[in-house]
Amino acid sequence: MINWNNLDTLKSYEKLKAVKRLNLVEAMSGAQGAERVGKYSVPMAAGLTFNYASKEVDDDILSALKELAEEAQLTEKYQALYEGEVINTGEKRMVLHQLTRGQLGKDVMADGVNKREFYENEQKRIAEFAEKVHSGEIANASGEKFTTVVQIGIGGSDLGPRAMYLALENWAKKHDTFKMEAKFISNVDPDDASSVLNSIDVAHSLFILVSKSGTTLETLTNQSFVMDALRKAGLDPAKHMIAVTSETSPLAHSDDFITAFYMDDYIGGRYSSTSGVGGAVLSLAFGPKVFADFLQGAAEEDKLSAESDLLKNPAMLDALIGVYERNVLGYPSTAVLPYSQALSRFPAHLQQLDMESNGKSVNRFGEPVDYVTGPVIFGEPGTNGQHSFYQLLHQGTDIVPLQFIGFRNSQIRNDVDIQDSTSQQKLCANVAAQIVAFACGKSDENLNKNFKGGRPSSIIVGSELDPKALGALLAHFENKVMFQGFVWNINSFDQEGVQLGKTLAKKVLAHETDGALAAYSRLLNI
Amino acid sequence: MINWNNLDTLKSYEKLKAVKRLNLVEAMSGAQGAERVGKYSVPMAAGLTFNYASKEVDDDILSALKELAEEAQLTEKYQALYEGEVINTGEKRMVLHQLTRGQLGKDVMADGVNKREFYENEQKRIAEFAEKVHSGEIANASGEKFTTVVQIGIGGSDLGPRAMYLALENWAKKHDTFKMEAKFISNVDPDDASSVLNSIDVAHSLFILVSKSGTTLETLTNQSFVMDALRKAGLDPAKHMIAVTSETSPLAHSDDFITAFYMDDYIGGRYSSTSGVGGAVLSLAFGPKVFADFLQGAAEEDKLSAESDLLKNPAMLDALIGVYERNVLGYPSTAVLPYSQALSRFPAHLQQLDMESNGKSVNRFGEPVDYVTGPVIFGEPGTNGQHSFYQLLHQGTDIVPLQFIGFRNSQIRNDVDIQDSTSQQKLCANVAAQIVAFACGKSDENLNKNFKGGRPSSIIVGSELDPKALGALLAHFENKVMFQGFVWNINSFDQEGVQLGKTLAKKVLAHETDGALAAYSRLLNI
Repeated sequence: MINWNNLDTLKSYEKLKAVKRLNLVEAMSGAQGAERVGKYSVPMAAGLTFNYASKEVDDDILSALKELAEEAQLTEKYQALYEGEVINTGEKRMVLHQLTRGQLGKDVMADGVNKREFYENEQKRIAEFAEKVHSGEIANASGEKFTTVVQIGIGGSDLGPRAMYLALENWAKKHDTFKMEAKFISNVDPDDASSVLNSIDVAHSLFILVSKSGTTLETLTNQSFVMDALRKAGLDPAKHMIAVTSETSPLAHSDDFITAFYMDDYIGGRYSSTSGVGGAVLSLAFGPKVFADFLQGAAEEDKLSAESDLLKNPAMLDALIGVYERNVLGYPSTAVLPYSQALSRFPAHLQQLDMESNGKSVNRFGEPVDYVTGPVIFGEPGTNGQHSFYQLLHQGTDIVPLQFIGFRNSQIRNDVDIQDSTSQQKLCANVAAQIVAFACGKSDENLNKNFKGGRPSSIIVGSELDPKALGALLAHFENKVMFQGFVWNINSFDQEGVQLGKTLAKKVLAHETDGALAAYSRLLNI
Repeated sequence: MINWNNLDTLKSYEKLKAVKRLNLVEAMSGAQGAERVGKYSVPMAAGLTFNYASKEVDDDILSALKELAEEAQLTEKYQALYEGEVINTGEKRMVLHQLTRGQLGKDVMADGVNKREFYENEQKRIAEFAEKVHSGEIANASGEKFTTVVQIGIGGSDLGPRAMYLALENWAKKHDTFKMEAKFISNVDPDDASSVLNSIDVAHSLFILVSKSGTTLETLTNQSFVMDALRKAGLDPAKHMIAVTSETSPLAHSDDFITAFYMDDYIGGRYSSTSGVGGAVLSLAFGPKVFADFLQGAAEEDKLSAESDLLKNPAMLDALIGVYERNVLGYPSTAVLPYSQALSRFPAHLQQLDMESNGKSVNRFGEPVDYVTGPVIFGEPGTNGQHSFYQLLHQGTDIVPLQFIGFRNSQIRNDVDIQDSTSQQKLCANVAAQIVAFACGKSDENLNKNFKGGRPSSIIVGSELDPKALGALLAHFENKVMFQGFVWNINSFDQEGVQLGKTLAKKVLAHETDGALAAYSRLLNI
């Protein structure tokens, strides 16, 4: 029997608030600090490690978090989710994105089919299609191979797939599995589509239209934009475009596309990178094997997330430490700092994943909650960020918890040795140095040069950012966000907050405005 | 006589805290809302407008802010800055970036020269050099024209110039003033340099090494990386590289470069887009005329910022409203939301500009301050952000003040009419709709669909993002950050917070570590 209770009704939460806080500067200094680095570490899938030695936790706080995890029934709730309970209460839907990459529990039936089989079948169809494109069996009207794939989508149909593409582009080139360059059109700003179209050879480009509902304004507008460009080039749009959509959408079974691949309402946009939304573009760009490895990494991480012992469950630990930071310590934002240029857009994806999932003020029953929920998420790759906003992170008046990500090896493995170290060593040295600088600080009589420390961080470390590691990384954060939603007792799978803007934008375009909306419309000359 | 006092010692600040707060939902509803949109608006340079109707201010609050601006002597402090007082107290330096684009006060002499003349002369040298590159007078060893320019720099030598390049790339192409493609190498991650080098034709590439001190670890490492690649391609690095640095740096007057252009210690990295740091790459990419127009827009905005009447000074107004939001209303972060794909990296630049300048806990005399200073800054272009983190902005438990930017026209002017509106109209309709949705909200009995509103925003509106408008936009934010630093009585022009990480990274690379630092180094296999 699962109880869906608000965080502030849980006894373990009251207890957690009463546990003595950790002095991080003290805890991370000297031999004790080294011991923590060894101790507060848990394996993830694909050879990754989640190390939380520099978080403001100790055995007492972890023990309180464990009680919280148990009282909040996080493992049971996760099981309910992957076995097909209606977890998305707002939209009355199951939440099945994990089934795209594995099956942890009993079969889930919906719409008259076994959903795992449905997702696997679509993956198989995508793999076959991609291979035909790569072999030239599917080609343009002149029988020439497609060389570029362009994803048209926005939000979850853009951020996740784009971040994953950038994460693996150089890896695939290095491992001779790079098949086609991918580009992305997302914004309704006409300069976005124009700029991408000006940068490609449309005659050899295959476009993927991605919209689950088939009604997303930006995406349909950009579809027309692209179709126009194809026609102007004397090409037949229907020979250059495929769709990824739900079977009930107006885009399904349409003559406008070479073919269509299907997802369904049980996968939210921001959780769709492992569905056809990410699958089509990644399989076309890198080949189906790379995408399959990516799924395997995610599946292994999903399995780890089912572990009921908090200390062996990296996603749950990360989630609970985050709740402690947000609700007990009162920190309003979190920075994601990958020390890997390939993850340049990974923070932007996590920004959507986290803020759209948990930026809510009502619980899953639509009642207001009396505590803060999802934080602001932002970030840029290191070492770039060090020369940008780290000043505030080190010496600003607010504390911002940090999520580092680092790899021991580069992807391209092309490096130079300067001053007795490679660039990769310098990169890794910097992330190690930053963690300690943030945690321990450094006293200086000149307060302008003084570092208070006590600024908490965790790090996910891996050997190399390869497809499996990327899948594990993605699933870790998806599951972290899910667990936090469970703790806050909110629905992490709808997004009613995006509706009002859409409604008002339609009014503006229909010139049905008054008051401030009319005045702003005039200001913008609409 | 200028008094440098902490914010919490000012009488006007106490008064401001006591002024009745505005109910934004009420204020922006009905005819009153429309009236505010007309009234709370102030012209900027280059035809831009700063509209703050949807901020939580009214005449009483504005009047209190005006008193605060006067008591804090913002106009006098700005004048002291542009006339060469040592405003950067930590490093005991003048702050002269405004002199790169104009002169507002009396002559500033330093290092035995008139600094305005010095900056102008460097601009002239850059313009002449760029024209020779464009004409082919300066070419590669085979006498062939350079086709690509690659900036090697990090932090302020990367973020600002890169954001400005992306902002004008399509505009320049449209206006037939696009001369060379620009690329950027910044991260010490070897995959960054490798990836850029793999994407260009090095034989026809001109590299700009940018480091004021000539000692930036990342930049020198990437210089070696690039020199290696040039040598491997049988090319002479000295024939492919120029430098932008200070005259006292080890890079000055070196045989490693075709030539060098100079800046000085009076221009901080994050304020250097209008110096040679931005000037070389932008003049090479778009021609000197475009760069000159960009400077003119900035100069005009600088002039506006000298206006002592708060209500006529957009940067000062923006700054003071931000202080009110941060210190009185208690909002910890601010989102920058340009409805222009060309400004995709503008928020990343502002993130550095703002967070590195004002993320400080001590005042300009090195004494701790008892109030919060710079907020967290983040953002992505709209409409993309709408499908990402806007959920939290609309319905999250925290309020995040918003800075919209919008233009009535696109840059490329290629558009399609779908459902009776162009993409550009849809883009503008969305920004108008969002402002009103955030301010007014919308009641719904289903609290999951309820929008409380009361979420403040301002918008900067222009006709088109052209070089002058971009210059004005940049200067607006530089001056906003400067005024906020004055109000908080901090030094916005140093960055001591970046030092500790550098020191510790060197220790890691020298294997001079113990405790936690040694343990993290082992974890990362250094």
